[in-house]
Amino acid sequence: MDGSLESVSGPGRVAGPEEGISTQELALAARNHGLPLEGLRYDVTPPGLHYVLVHYDIPAVDTTGWQLAVGGRVRTPLALDMAALRAYPAVTQRVTMECAGNGRARLSPRPVSQPWLVEAVGTAEWTGVPLRTLLAEAGVEPGSVEAVFTGADHGVERGVEQDYRRSLPLAVATGDWPEVLVAYAMNGQPLPPQHGYPLRLVVPGWYGMAHVKWLREVTVTDTPFTGFQQAVAYRLRQSADEPGEPVTRIAPRALMIPPGFPDFMSRERVVRPGFVALEGRAWSGYAPVERVEVTADGGETWTDADVGRQAPHPWAWASWRALWTAEPGRYVLSVRATDAEGRTQPLEQPWNRGGFANNLVQHVPVLCVSD
Amino acid sequence: MDGSLESVSGPGRVAGPEEGISTQELALAARNHGLPLEGLRYDVTPPGLHYVLVHYDIPAVDTTGWQLAVGGRVRTPLALDMAALRAYPAVTQRVTMECAGNGRARLSPRPVSQPWLVEAVGTAEWTGVPLRTLLAEAGVEPGSVEAVFTGADHGVERGVEQDYRRSLPLAVATGDWPEVLVAYAMNGQPLPPQHGYPLRLVVPGWYGMAHVKWLREVTVTDTPFTGFQQAVAYRLRQSADEPGEPVTRIAPRALMIPPGFPDFMSRERVVRPGFVALEGRAWSGYAPVERVEVTADGGETWTDADVGRQAPHPWAWASWRALWTAEPGRYVLSVRATDAEGRTQPLEQPWNRGGFANNLVQHVPVLCVSD
Repeated sequence: MDGSLESVSGPGRVAGPEEGISTQELALAARNHGLPLEGLRYDVTPPGLHYVLVHYDIPAVDTTGWQLAVGGRVRTPLALDMAALRAYPAVTQRVTMECAGNGRARLSPRPVSQPWLVEAVGTAEWTGVPLRTLLAEAGVEPGSVEAVFTGADHGVERGVEQDYRRSLPLAVATGDWPEVLVAYAMNGQPLPPQHGYPLRLVVPGWYGMAHVKWLREVTVTDTPFTGFQQAVAYRLRQSADEPGEPVTRIAPRALMIPPGFPDFMSRERVVRPGFVALEGRAWSGYAPVERVEVTADGGETWTDADVGRQAPHPWAWASWRALWTAEPGRYVLSVRATDAEGRTQPLEQPWNRGGFANNLVQHVPVLCVSD
Repeated sequence: MDGSLESVSGPGRVAGPEEGISTQELALAARNHGLPLEGLRYDVTPPGLHYVLVHYDIPAVDTTGWQLAVGGRVRTPLALDMAALRAYPAVTQRVTMECAGNGRARLSPRPVSQPWLVEAVGTAEWTGVPLRTLLAEAGVEPGSVEAVFTGADHGVERGVEQDYRRSLPLAVATGDWPEVLVAYAMNGQPLPPQHGYPLRLVVPGWYGMAHVKWLREVTVTDTPFTGFQQAVAYRLRQSADEPGEPVTRIAPRALMIPPGFPDFMSRERVVRPGFVALEGRAWSGYAPVERVEVTADGGETWTDADVGRQAPHPWAWASWRALWTAEPGRYVLSVRATDAEGRTQPLEQPWNRGGFANNLVQHVPVLCVSD
């Protein structure tokens, strides 16, 4: 009987060519949940439909004693309870958040981890205190390079026991574009437990791993953070032995509300002949979405969709709409977004060992049946 | 190219002996979500943690025109808008709801459908109008036998295009134990879209399929309803060609909050030596839970847990608590509930083709590591 942590906590791996989804992957899919794609119809995602990814357990939190510590290389360390945080001027931002592993389960070969298909996204109104306000009050020492964020969630991952912990470059942590928030409310309510109650970081434009939940500590450092979630996980690597590039901002993506109605088991879509409104959302963590195109013929021809204006909410998804004339037959609908910096979505899978930042276009099989 | 509905909507089936979880099953797991088991710590499940099973799509609902029609074999058909429904005296009940397919994905062989492991449960405070009040006002004709409930969700299932529709025997629909509700609020708020906004049926003690969401019509009939969800689905069958018995009330079950902390990927638990509090919930749709027992040796010896009182909330789960002294090694913890009618949980899987009402005891592998 092997009683070591490694016996329950193996290394990262990629599934074999014929390997079905494992019970471990299914257990993650049953806990963590995606946005049912018809939920793209809401500008702001209702509670319970926003995607959730919890690395370990949702911590049991008693807020009577909860304090956020701001320390490390600062002149005046802070210890702020919830009342102190609420006393600062509040800022609200509408932010589209996406898991860095979105789309992983459709990759070939499949990285074995949380098996998202395409639905790990959501948009919420986050309210809190700008991080730069707190760091300015604490007074960052010259020569500092990063801020490290520690959550209360505790577990083991690839043999390493840890509290969830991530860092940001100091320029991002103290910047105002995006404005990083220490958030205590989601859609006007206290954070739900699974979204970080009582406090989480919100880093508009960045993948979800940066938005540290159940936030307990902010620590300013004069060396780059080399903890597990920064130096081991969330790297773009082709092989296990290279250091890889860090995962940061959200690559552009458009998603479609699957049209018509579904089959229960296959989730394939059925429409009737005639005009079918295709609608959905598109976003990029780099720049506003400038163009959305749809195809019904596997990418041979693309049609421009009408794109709604993001201006009042620069970090939230844009709506888009196109009209498709359906005739009896089988189709695979796809949609792709292009942002103002020219980034777009590939038609071939962008693969890396972690299955991160994969923004392959969505494929929506549709059957049009005769009236 | 086969353009029939059957081409996207196959018959029910059971997985082959070596067949891994399919992408179709995974797509259901990514949409529908279970209760992360640490969520058992809350008496009332916070929004977004309660399990959700949506057969088709969450309908787009505009409540300005929403009406509940009460008709069929009644003297005075009713058409009630939301204001009319809110004008009746409101009743609130705390109800534990569980999907009839809970535990399906652990069965061998595995019925292919929504692949729940063990987490398809939640408890909420539901507020609404007793169904018997509405049926009394409409005046049920003599000789009536059932009430049929129609939701707004539309799809195809095993080749049958349908709105989701289920019935209850008239004695249940008009009874006061349980008191069936037409509910418009969950935990004091309007129903979330995925829980049936603006209206759903709540049938305390029954599995989830009876709690029809997005409720549009109540129709009193003088013949038993033979629609898909009543006569084809939700039957206890050993083979495909027998009629089977209907799925009704919730079989007893206890679940444990997995102790210690998890590995990210395997979800296996790690504890340190010493006293470990084992806690969780137990429920039965037939009678109050009278006894909860735990085992750490695969069922050789069982220890009674302390069981909290259900009395103020007879249709909600009971809390339970036991103390376990952990020593270094590997264990599989289990827990079983027994209700006041003597129903308990089996140690061997109760199998049927749909994977319904399977209340096999939970197994929680735990590694106790040295300090």
